[in-house]
Amino acid sequence: MADSVLFEFLHTEMVAELWDHDPDSDPTPGGQKPSLSVLEGMGFRVGQALGERLPQDALALREELDALKFLCKDLWVAVFQKQVDGLRTNHQGTYVLQDNSFPLLLPMASGLQYQEEAAKFLAFPCGLLRGSLHTLGFRSLVTASVAALPACKFQVMIQKP
Amino acid sequence: MADSVLFEFLHTEMVAELWDHDPDSDPTPGGQKPSLSVLEGMGFRVGQALGERLPQDALALREELDALKFLCKDLWVAVFQKQVDGLRTNHQGTYVLQDNSFPLLLPMASGLQYQEEAAKFLAFPCGLLRGSLHTLGFRSLVTASVAALPACKFQVMIQKP
Repeated sequence: MADSVLFEFLHTEMVAELWDHDPDSDPTPGGQKPSLSVLEGMGFRVGQALGERLPQDALALREELDALKFLCKDLWVAVFQKQVDGLRTNHQGTYVLQDNSFPLLLPMASGLQYQEEAAKFLAFPCGLLRGSLHTLGFRSLVTASVAALPACKFQVMIQKP
Repeated sequence: MADSVLFEFLHTEMVAELWDHDPDSDPTPGGQKPSLSVLEGMGFRVGQALGERLPQDALALREELDALKFLCKDLWVAVFQKQVDGLRTNHQGTYVLQDNSFPLLLPMASGLQYQEEAAKFLAFPCGLLRGSLHTLGFRSLVTASVAALPACKFQVMIQKP
């Protein structure tokens, strides 16, 4: 029994439970369903807490690109047992992390009708990235998109102080 | 960054989130707060799913005592990175699992005023035990009690068919 399975099962239950509470609620004025905000917030706090457990040399990553590489490698391996498959940047504070087979989307059959469902499973990891970056000293906006399951992209925009 | 930390952080967030939804709700006629039932149910399903990942020889544990020993050792190590410290039985279907330093209670300072709080953190593991036993072929009732933090006891009553 791998520990990663435990995290994935617990995450699945958490998503299901929040959707039970909140099945048909309207989007907030910002356009996001409350459950997604709740999941994103939980991811943020878990990311922050994980960040505080990072080796001290990681906390000294003051270059944006180094911090992003750290997330793609160390954070992803710690949480998902794999690295992010690709990292691109426009060198102006925007980064795109490409995961060709994102573990939280793997249980979902492929097909267009599941793409809306996918949003539920991407809110927590968006928060996880934002929280870890926060502990590393960077404010960011993180969004996710799916073109073809189980691949997905996370877009990170670093907010300048 | 150990994977166990990830599970513990996620569990903490889940408890906090459910309490936010349900801070002052009245107990159900059964005497349990709805949030506790929700957490127990999530634990049950995670335990069931973990049970299905067990090696096949574990699923062949048809003796109650063997199944309980399996939970005390293999399940506990997989989820909490430690074994249960003691197992007692009356040889009539009731088992008491004693954990002298239960990981989900460790972050809580000791003190009588926290014992009520502790119930929140024991509902999920009660469900976890019940769900794993279910996959192993045993129906059970599982309750938990705390005498002195961070020690706790889980009482398992196997239901005869």
